[in-house]
Amino acid sequence: MDIENLVGSIADFNAEKFAQAAEELHYADLANVFEDLDDQGREFFTKNIDTARFSEVLAELPDTLIEETLERFPIAQQREILGQLVDDDRADILQDVSTSAQQRYLALLQPEEMEETRSLMRYHEETAGGRMTTKVARITQNMSVKEALDTLREEQDSAESLARIYVVDERGHLLGKVRLRDLAFSTWDTRVSSIMEEVDITILATADQEEAAQIFSKYDMTLLPVVNEYEYLLGVITHDDVLEILEEESTEDIEKMSGIAGEQSEETYLNTALSTHFKRRFPWLLILAMLAISSGYVMLRFEDVLSSIYLLALYLPMVVAAGGNTGGQAAAMVIRAMSLGELEAGTTRKVLSKEVCLGAMLGSVMGLCIAIVTMFILPLFNPQLPVGVTIASFSLAVSLALALQITSSTLSGALLPIGARAIKLDPAVVAAPAITTLVDISGMLIYFTAARAILHIT
Amino acid sequence: MDIENLVGSIADFNAEKFAQAAEELHYADLANVFEDLDDQGREFFTKNIDTARFSEVLAELPDTLIEETLERFPIAQQREILGQLVDDDRADILQDVSTSAQQRYLALLQPEEMEETRSLMRYHEETAGGRMTTKVARITQNMSVKEALDTLREEQDSAESLARIYVVDERGHLLGKVRLRDLAFSTWDTRVSSIMEEVDITILATADQEEAAQIFSKYDMTLLPVVNEYEYLLGVITHDDVLEILEEESTEDIEKMSGIAGEQSEETYLNTALSTHFKRRFPWLLILAMLAISSGYVMLRFEDVLSSIYLLALYLPMVVAAGGNTGGQAAAMVIRAMSLGELEAGTTRKVLSKEVCLGAMLGSVMGLCIAIVTMFILPLFNPQLPVGVTIASFSLAVSLALALQITSSTLSGALLPIGARAIKLDPAVVAAPAITTLVDISGMLIYFTAARAILHIT
Repeated sequence: MDIENLVGSIADFNAEKFAQAAEELHYADLANVFEDLDDQGREFFTKNIDTARFSEVLAELPDTLIEETLERFPIAQQREILGQLVDDDRADILQDVSTSAQQRYLALLQPEEMEETRSLMRYHEETAGGRMTTKVARITQNMSVKEALDTLREEQDSAESLARIYVVDERGHLLGKVRLRDLAFSTWDTRVSSIMEEVDITILATADQEEAAQIFSKYDMTLLPVVNEYEYLLGVITHDDVLEILEEESTEDIEKMSGIAGEQSEETYLNTALSTHFKRRFPWLLILAMLAISSGYVMLRFEDVLSSIYLLALYLPMVVAAGGNTGGQAAAMVIRAMSLGELEAGTTRKVLSKEVCLGAMLGSVMGLCIAIVTMFILPLFNPQLPVGVTIASFSLAVSLALALQITSSTLSGALLPIGARAIKLDPAVVAAPAITTLVDISGMLIYFTAARAILHIT
Repeated sequence: MDIENLVGSIADFNAEKFAQAAEELHYADLANVFEDLDDQGREFFTKNIDTARFSEVLAELPDTLIEETLERFPIAQQREILGQLVDDDRADILQDVSTSAQQRYLALLQPEEMEETRSLMRYHEETAGGRMTTKVARITQNMSVKEALDTLREEQDSAESLARIYVVDERGHLLGKVRLRDLAFSTWDTRVSSIMEEVDITILATADQEEAAQIFSKYDMTLLPVVNEYEYLLGVITHDDVLEILEEESTEDIEKMSGIAGEQSEETYLNTALSTHFKRRFPWLLILAMLAISSGYVMLRFEDVLSSIYLLALYLPMVVAAGGNTGGQAAAMVIRAMSLGELEAGTTRKVLSKEVCLGAMLGSVMGLCIAIVTMFILPLFNPQLPVGVTIASFSLAVSLALALQITSSTLSGALLPIGARAIKLDPAVVAAPAITTLVDISGMLIYFTAARAILHIT
């Protein structure tokens, strides 16, 4: 409703209606609308939006739009927008623009903001330090409740959340935490040190963002304090950061598991350029195609088997594909368990023995199904088999090959992600597409070898 | 460290060491340890744990363990554990036990707890109502700040979060919200109505949990109020619920996209029984194998083509597999964009035209690559081609088939999830495995038809 009003006002270049509609909307909606506009629409949007409002919108925009959008504003407004940003958003934004723009934008900041932003920019975007905000509510242990409340009241706008208030010593080392309710409901002369609780869980600024998200969701945290190796309190990670991390990491897993390469686009699927989509899909496609020629080569080498019993072609794609499917399932299970932090080092043997059992179970049941289908249904079609080959021996060859292919593929599906992790690769890159291609080769080999041996093809 | 102490104390049946280690640990860690114990270990654990502590542990256990674990306690302790649970956890737990246990456990509760639990149990576990807690901080608009603080102080333990305090009228309708800091930092005679803010975003109790998670992460919410159709405030969803929802939904997507059926196990990968893993992987495996026989049938029907130019076998797996890979990529992109709420109705045409372009781009570049490889590298191996077929015409047939297969598979990969959603199926079920199997069939058809037409095989 409001969104439609906004879009309509931009189409009509109606500044008054625009200002009204923009005021009612959430910044996330404003950012969505902005992203979908054409150049003229964006020009109108940036001319007419309340500058103070726009810093929130800017923080929601995809990386690729940041610089060109900021450049639409005169310098005074750039200064205002950058000044209004929350510190972690500001550091993120400055990490995403060109080096020359970065210098220019930094120079627009107040000296202390500049210092703070620079120090945040030292951390890689995907670490706890890169995600944290330094706007954390801090009090010291010698304060009374009254002093603490006064301090917080003065600084309330500089803390992103008062859900937890951290107690530090004079040099900034983390000592404990209190909740605002503990302060609000205590008598004013109570010492902070007497109501503060211990902080059990912290994270190092250099830790991976995925670790922060895992800690957050495992321990149902509200805020996660970020420290350096001397337990000096640097900042906090808030729950909206964690939602973003989880979304990013899930997208990354799904994309990698589908053979999509490169960094994920911050833009929506529809707004991402064709060339970007192309660049991310092409590399794996080419690598896998080259690998798949090996399967063809195996098929070529077994010409004699296929030409003496061409009926083998009926089950060839099925046996080969079943390996890809079971391998893909096993890989997905193992990769997901790894992402959820369930598989630490030392569990490899358990995983492999589990998957070997499962593979053997799936393989034998599937083999049995196909043997039955072949024994009872195939004869109805009067298949042509060479002398010396019976329906029974044909069924045996096919179902044995299927069982072997499923068992070995299940094992490969579990083994490859674990192996990838061992050599510090992301396990997700060896999911379905890579596994399917690899077990296609083994499937061809298993199928033709079983047929040749059991059906005595010379 | 502490976890090792705990595990050691259980192995030694050392009650004193156990009590000490358990006290130091977070309930999430206790639950993890408990889940990994054998029957004897669990018996020792439940005998020696502080009962008050155990309700938090119980809420973290997988569904399948709830009832057998509660049954280890005498009735008086069952009552204590159930009484200590947060209301939404209690309702979840009671939804997961057998009907007879459900009645017994409900009867152990205080009358008002029973009433509250029953009303929460009316909502399906995967709706906003099923996820919410009714323990929300409520004040009325006519209170002064002092009265509001007094009310909150009295009821502070009954509210799960004071991050937002909701203002309701006498009949419980949602009017607005205040933050604890607004109360703590206002003078005591200020009216609540003068400092309260509007609540823009609420969710209906009957809405899907995924919608709640999307709103939460889109709008950076702290708490999401849950209402009925009359704007009566029923409860709130907290950020730890949202983390759980996101984790569940991502796991569900990844599993479905890998051909794993049925409800996800609440137990860890390693603790899930072999039979459960088997039951979830077998159905799709069987369906896809049956479908794959169609590919074999196509291959069988084109015996003449393959036997007149057996060299075609070299590229057959590659052309077929390339379709599965591009189709899988397109499907993953579209499915993920849907989960993130990016593709609303009306965007179908845009998606399809995007994917047709991409498919054509990928297809023609890949076709070109293969044509070059074939023209320049294949001759080095002195391939045997029948009279009338040149390396050039062979290359043309193969690369044209590849280009067509990639283009059509990319389109299918995008179309199938959209189609699935249109008929109210979960789009994720038609991801890679289903698409690969389907485009295997089209790939065989395209490949052999192109070969027959271009290479004039009669």
